[in-house]
Amino acid sequence: MVSEELDSLIFYLSKLPGVGKRSAKRIALHMIKNRSSIMFPIASAINKAANSIKICSVCKNIDSSNPCAICQNEKRIKNTICVVEDVADLWAIERGNFYKGLYHVLGGTLSAIDGKGPEDLNIQELIDRVESAEIEEVILAMNFTAQGQTTAYYIIEYLKDKNVKLSKPAQGIPVGGELDYLDDGTLSTAITSRLPCKET
Amino acid sequence: MVSEELDSLIFYLSKLPGVGKRSAKRIALHMIKNRSSIMFPIASAINKAANSIKICSVCKNIDSSNPCAICQNEKRIKNTICVVEDVADLWAIERGNFYKGLYHVLGGTLSAIDGKGPEDLNIQELIDRVESAEIEEVILAMNFTAQGQTTAYYIIEYLKDKNVKLSKPAQGIPVGGELDYLDDGTLSTAITSRLPCKET
Repeated sequence: MVSEELDSLIFYLSKLPGVGKRSAKRIALHMIKNRSSIMFPIASAINKAANSIKICSVCKNIDSSNPCAICQNEKRIKNTICVVEDVADLWAIERGNFYKGLYHVLGGTLSAIDGKGPEDLNIQELIDRVESAEIEEVILAMNFTAQGQTTAYYIIEYLKDKNVKLSKPAQGIPVGGELDYLDDGTLSTAITSRLPCKET
Repeated sequence: MVSEELDSLIFYLSKLPGVGKRSAKRIALHMIKNRSSIMFPIASAINKAANSIKICSVCKNIDSSNPCAICQNEKRIKNTICVVEDVADLWAIERGNFYKGLYHVLGGTLSAIDGKGPEDLNIQELIDRVESAEIEEVILAMNFTAQGQTTAYYIIEYLKDKNVKLSKPAQGIPVGGELDYLDDGTLSTAITSRLPCKET
């Protein structure tokens, strides 16, 4: 019914995360209505990005240069590595503009269900980095999920004898969090790991 | 922080309907992780669609041919026009595979707030079609919103003296609708326009 080219466009759009069949149609229509301002520029942006993007050989970050801009940046603290599951997590931390060290992107978590073992993640590369460079601290910033924490424990097993400080982000009540609306897990973690109030 | 090419891709993705800054990042990452299976094909699909798509000069539908496949189809009933606001509405009706007539896409609704007058819609083209071809029925299938119905009444004013049957879709309880969960407007319309039960 609809033209072949449009069908193919809708098909590929519906493969994107968070985009279903209906929103793919809506996006396709929106593109066609804005051909010169959106449709052609987006096709060229995708092509340009696809051709220019590289995976950093040091930290597995995504960037147009290899090593990535973070690894090359002279101002970053070179003795601290923050281990994250995914590039999206790296971006989230960079958004805050508070962390000045380096990163290591694992590319996922250990998962028996999905058949993902240590060899599917960039764990060996992390161990190599810790052994070859002068790393003082490794921050294990995996998601606070069962799989993220399993992966963290697995990495701790490898690094605990390496003369490197291992740390993880603090867990507790989020900024703006109201106790009544928190899930039980967060609340119990926050109360159990309570800290002494500073004297004023 | 992120490369220029990636920033530009995320920027254009976030301009799409239903895609915000965060989902644009997620989509960009997903694309990069599936460069050969998604990223290059989608760029080519967008380009192909952008270059091939035409607006049907008869009914304003979107297709790769002009007149569109529906207008050209010999099996369609040529004396009935279903007027819709948008191509998406045409697709929705075509999905059901029950309507065999032609269409006319208005390209929106009359809207004083958005400054959209009759000259911004394909209303004159509809009047010309009704006058020049042998049209017996015009179905006004605008959305059941204030703007859609205003537009319908405006078109009725023009067509009521043209010796053409004007109709609109039935309004009432949707299939699977439970009375207790319906909004008051739908319920009152359904009860007020009640129909006699057929004798068995």
